[in-house]
Amino acid sequence: MLKDNLWTIDRKGIEEMERIRRLNFINSISGYKAANLVGTISTGGSTNLAIGSSVVHLSSSPAVIGFIQRPTVVPRHTYRNIRSTGWYTINQVHRDITDKAHYTSAKFDESESEFEHADLTVHYEEGYPAPFVGESRLRVMVRYIEEYHLKASDTIMMVGGIELVQADRQAIQSNGALDLDAIGSVCISGLDSYHTATRFAAYSYARPGQFPVNEMPGQ
Amino acid sequence: MLKDNLWTIDRKGIEEMERIRRLNFINSISGYKAANLVGTISTGGSTNLAIGSSVVHLSSSPAVIGFIQRPTVVPRHTYRNIRSTGWYTINQVHRDITDKAHYTSAKFDESESEFEHADLTVHYEEGYPAPFVGESRLRVMVRYIEEYHLKASDTIMMVGGIELVQADRQAIQSNGALDLDAIGSVCISGLDSYHTATRFAAYSYARPGQFPVNEMPGQ
Repeated sequence: MLKDNLWTIDRKGIEEMERIRRLNFINSISGYKAANLVGTISTGGSTNLAIGSSVVHLSSSPAVIGFIQRPTVVPRHTYRNIRSTGWYTINQVHRDITDKAHYTSAKFDESESEFEHADLTVHYEEGYPAPFVGESRLRVMVRYIEEYHLKASDTIMMVGGIELVQADRQAIQSNGALDLDAIGSVCISGLDSYHTATRFAAYSYARPGQFPVNEMPGQ
Repeated sequence: MLKDNLWTIDRKGIEEMERIRRLNFINSISGYKAANLVGTISTGGSTNLAIGSSVVHLSSSPAVIGFIQRPTVVPRHTYRNIRSTGWYTINQVHRDITDKAHYTSAKFDESESEFEHADLTVHYEEGYPAPFVGESRLRVMVRYIEEYHLKASDTIMMVGGIELVQADRQAIQSNGALDLDAIGSVCISGLDSYHTATRFAAYSYARPGQFPVNEMPGQ
C-alpha cells in the first residue's frame, strides 16, 4: 500500500512475502551494519573465518562487545571453536578485501579453512590464541564471557571482553575515536550490498537549550 | 605501541585511558552503526524519543528485531514506556534530520517531549499505539516480546516483533532489499560522527569454488 509516498506492510504481509524477498527486506530495515570477520581456531588447530554483520557495542568500561550468532546462517564451527577455546577475533572489513570477506560465507567443509580459500592471512599475536586477519586495519581480540539464547529469534547473543585492539595508524585521532572512513571500512545493507561511508557531521555532547552545531571543518 | 603500521593497545592500556577517550575509542571499534530514533509514549500520553545506535537484526521469520538499552546513557523513559505500553517504534535517521536526531540525546526532563524540542513530527498510524517520527523515511512499529539483562555490560537486550514497516518508495527495490543510500540513511561512528554511505558492491549468495563477482552495474 502506498500512502504519503510511503510503502506500508504489516506483519501478515511480511509473513506472506516470498522467503528470499523477506530475507532481503527484513535484513534491510535495521539500517547499515558494520562488516566484520570473526576468526577462531579449533582445539585441533583448524582456523575458521566467518563474515558477520551483527557486532554490537555493549560497554566501554568494562570494555565489552557482542555479536549475534545465527545458528542457521553462520557456520556452527565459529560457535564451537569459541566455546572450546574461549577466544575469538573481530576483524573489520575494508574495501580492498570485501570480495574475500563475502566469500567466507560459502559453506566450506569443516576441514577447510576460510582463510585459505579466501586468500586471507592468518596472523597471531604472541600470548593470544585466536587468529587475526592479517589484512584487516582494525581488529579486536575477544575473550568469551557469557551468552544468551534469545528465544524469540532462536539466536545467541555472544558477549566477550576486549583484550587487545589493533588499528591502522591512519585511523588514530586525537580524541580517541577512530577514523573509519580513512581506512576504507565497509558497512552492509540487506544481505549482499557493501558500502563505504563519508562523514558529513560531528556534534558535541547534546545539552538542553543548545541545538547541535556541526563542528566538522568545512561544513 | 606502533608495529607494522598498527597501533596496539591491550586490556590494561584500555582500562588506563582517560574516560572520554576510552568512550570514543571503544564506541568506534565495532564499526559503523545504524542511526535510529526509538519512539515511545507513556501511559499518561507523554511522547518520548531517543537516538540509538545499537539496533540489530535478529530474524526474518519470525520478523524480530533487537536493540541494546544502555541504562546509564539512554534516558530510562524509553525503557519504562516500552514496558508499560508494550510498544515502540524504530525510525531511521536520514541526513536532513541528523542534527535534530542528535539533539534528542540531551537530558530533557521527563515532562518534556523530545519530539517537540527537536521539532520532529509525531505521527500515529491507526490501530498502533506508539508514535512514529513523521520525517523518517524508514520506520518500524515494534511490539515488545522479551528482554535479557546482559550481566557483563549491565545492559538490556530488548527483543521485539515487527508489526508494521513503512518505507519511502524511493527505497523500494525489486528483490525486496531497501536502497538505504537513496533515502539518505545515516550511520554513526564513535559517539558523535555521522556518515552517509555509498554502495560499491553487490554479490550473489556465496558458494564454494565460485569466487564472488561484483554484480553492481558499472563496477
